[in-house]
This record gives sequence, structure tokens and C-alpha cells, in this order.
Amino acid sequence: MSLNPQYEDIGKGFVQQFYGIFDDPANRANVVNFYSATDSFMTFEGHQIQGAPKILEKVQSLSFQKINRVITTVDSQPTFDGGVLINVLGRLQTDEDQPHAYIQTFVLKPVGGSFFVQHDIFRLSLHDV
Amino acid sequence: MSLNPQYEDIGKGFVQQFYGIFDDPANRANVVNFYSATDSFMTFEGHQIQGAPKILEKVQSLSFQKINRVITTVDSQPTFDGGVLINVLGRLQTDEDQPHAYIQTFVLKPVGGSFFVQHDIFRLSLHDV
Repeated sequence: MSLNPQYEDIGKGFVQQFYGIFDDPANRANVVNFYSATDSFMTFEGHQIQGAPKILEKVQSLSFQKINRVITTVDSQPTFDGGVLINVLGRLQTDEDQPHAYIQTFVLKPVGGSFFVQHDIFRLSLHDV
Repeated sequence: MSLNPQYEDIGKGFVQQFYGIFDDPANRANVVNFYSATDSFMTFEGHQIQGAPKILEKVQSLSFQKINRVITTVDSQPTFDGGVLINVLGRLQTDEDQPHAYIQTFVLKPVGGSFFVQHDIFRLSLHDV
């Protein structure tokens, strides 16, 4: 497969769609549909998880309900298998907590005309002040 | 190719080696050797560059000499072609500027028993305070 020239739009579209689901407490668990049963890696605050069932467990274990999120930048690059590497820098506030900067990296893998999340790395950048 | 079980050590080793060269003003231009002439993408503060010659131009255009760098976290994941996805969160101070948090994502691609940097995304997270 070759580079997808639409990588920029795919990256921005994915970020909007993904957080639209994640940030809605009633809908949050449906983010699991972005991941593969076996071939998805998530690193959440240094904790490594593989596969949709364990990723769902992790998402369901999150204790907050409300999220206020501001996206600062979305940087995308085309990958050589037709996928997209996406780097998100943003700020989020869960429930009544302090707002924090965070980073999240996704690698979208093409499959049957669509994409799944093959890689997902999330970090709150707590040590930046 | 399959997953490289050494991804964690490869990620940490690469970060140490890469910044060891980059952070030495006399040696900085040699980071170009980590990139492919054609198949490397760099996104530097939103500016997109492809291939080692243009990446070298970018590195040589940087106006600072001294860097103080602190690595906060390095998160690595194995990629399905035997490479490594690396996410670095850190702080850096160039010359006498203010220190800033930054994020840098690398994708290492295996080639002939070694790796080159296929993807590199760098952002100073200036808006995090």
C-alpha cells in the first residue's frame, strides 16, 4: 500500500470523532469499536494494555464523568502502509479537577476501507510547570 | 516481520543516543544519519519536511547552541513491522530562554539489523500553563 494523501483530513476527522465519543459519559465505552480485538496497543500513563477487551476494561475503570477538552494541535503524517500517525497536544479537565496538558499519539491502520487504532499512547504532562 | 520484544530497551537506547548527538552543538548535524534520504517524515512545530537533506537543512537552521534537556517519560510500543513507536515527554531550555515542556514522537523502521527514523513529530507545548 502507499501513502494516503488525505492523511491530514483523516487525522483531524478521527480526533474529532474519537473524542466526541470518549467525552460523552453515556457513549464512552463505544470507543472500544476503534480498536482491534488483538492488534491494538494502548499505553495509558505508562500502563501497557493489548487488545479491545482489556482496553474496554481500562476505559470503564476511569472514575470521572465529565471532560472539558481543548485541542491545541493535531499533527498527522502518512504511514507507509496507507495509515496515519497522529499526535495530539491538548488540555483536559475531568470533573472538578485541575486542568492538565496532555499528549496522545494514535496510529491508524487501514483495514477494508476504514481504519482501526493500532497504537495509542496517552500521557498527562503533569510535570510541565 | 514480527514484534520486537526488545522495544522498550530500543526506545530508551535510541532516545539517549539521539539526544546525545542532537544536544552537542558540535555534533548536532550528525543526527541526519538517523534519517532516510527519502522515506523519513519530520513535522517540526507544524512544519512538514521529508527526507534527510531537508531535515539536515532544518537542523542546521536552528539558531540556538546550548540545550538543557530533562526527559520526563519515554513510552515505547512495538510496531508490527519489527519497529518501535516512541513517545518522549520532556522539558528543554535552549541557550538562555525559558524552559518549555515538549513532546517528540519517533517511529523507528527496521532495516538491515538497524533502524532509521521513519517518522518524527516535535512540538513545544507552549500553551500548557
